[in-house]
Amino acid sequence: MSGTLYGISLGPGDPDLITRRAARLVAAAPVVAYPALPGEESFARAIAADLIAPGTREIRMEIPMTTERAPAQAAYDANAALIAAELEAGRDVAILCEGDALFYGSFMYLHARLSGRFACEIVPGVTSITACAAAAGLPLAARNERVTILPGPLPERELRNRIEGAESVAIMKVGRHMGKIRKVFDDLGLLERAVYVERASLPEERVLPLAQAPVPAPYFSMILLVKGGDPWL
Amino acid sequence: MSGTLYGISLGPGDPDLITRRAARLVAAAPVVAYPALPGEESFARAIAADLIAPGTREIRMEIPMTTERAPAQAAYDANAALIAAELEAGRDVAILCEGDALFYGSFMYLHARLSGRFACEIVPGVTSITACAAAAGLPLAARNERVTILPGPLPERELRNRIEGAESVAIMKVGRHMGKIRKVFDDLGLLERAVYVERASLPEERVLPLAQAPVPAPYFSMILLVKGGDPWL
Repeated sequence: MSGTLYGISLGPGDPDLITRRAARLVAAAPVVAYPALPGEESFARAIAADLIAPGTREIRMEIPMTTERAPAQAAYDANAALIAAELEAGRDVAILCEGDALFYGSFMYLHARLSGRFACEIVPGVTSITACAAAAGLPLAARNERVTILPGPLPERELRNRIEGAESVAIMKVGRHMGKIRKVFDDLGLLERAVYVERASLPEERVLPLAQAPVPAPYFSMILLVKGGDPWL
Repeated sequence: MSGTLYGISLGPGDPDLITRRAARLVAAAPVVAYPALPGEESFARAIAADLIAPGTREIRMEIPMTTERAPAQAAYDANAALIAAELEAGRDVAILCEGDALFYGSFMYLHARLSGRFACEIVPGVTSITACAAAAGLPLAARNERVTILPGPLPERELRNRIEGAESVAIMKVGRHMGKIRKVFDDLGLLERAVYVERASLPEERVLPLAQAPVPAPYFSMILLVKGGDPWL
């Protein structure tokens, strides 16, 4: 009998924000697989490090970051084949995922390649969005408010239009796009109302007014804007 | 010395989706408080039931559901006063929250009333959105895709405009608004592409094509639509 493919969401970084289910599944997994940039430590593996039992088989999935798609596709094909071999041998495989597995994660590329052939279970996790809201003490949405989640790499014009028409806004993947994003908030007169959160839930976590945020920002950073809201009800 | 106010996110319903941090804080709390509708069991308390130690003080916060604001405001004022008395006596108070404390939750109304006077820590949790995506095996967002979160009670015209201009969409609080929402998806030619998820993460969880969803739907239900996405990369 084949093993089960688990997509394990590990949350934003603090190992304490791993769910009980994810913790148990990682600890019991005979095989874990996780993404990593070439030459770098895997953040997903680092979050779960205290849970990985000695003797667990590890598949480090190096995914090249290129503008072309073909090299990344080839890397996912090759890693999916390695994982399929473990599943065919009857071993469960836990894919370790930063944040939530289906929210801007790379797990979906393995899921698309493997879920048709093998049993698959996905364990949802804490996203960086609610971790940043908790760090800032900022209610993201109340009652009938809308929430818009925008990736920072979007073109300036699109960011401007989307932020202008939004209520609550979370901007992901800020990093080197910070200069452009700050300009948009400034143009819209919203610079003073937005909050910048860096490395939410990690020991180095910082919360700053957007006007004081570093340019460029580190990769693990986010901007939150809550326009509406009456936290007093 | 005063106690600390904890906003404890408990996730979408499966007690196994409580984070390790939330589990530990609830188990250690001398006082827990949770919202409840008059005459009904508290869902937040039910999620955390196995963690509440014998002898823990419990504050059941009954919040009237009325169209007027005053009765709910008075209820939050009264419960905030009860909680403040515990904090002033040096006891930590854990507020139990369904889903995430700052994402369409009532915790913000206590936070607004108490966080200026007492130390406060918020523990983020798994939202129903990623729980529904996991149940449906549906990648919510990849790369530079936008995600729009809309409450079902919005007017039909606004829902239509927002869904039309969106990429990934999650519709919260579907319940009795299902008929209106289905009509909008149908009008936009998106009925076949949307997925309905009921009671995500609970034993009664169901995933259906939106076209087969019940009208009206139960309170704990959601609609997901993923327009973009290339899960193969």
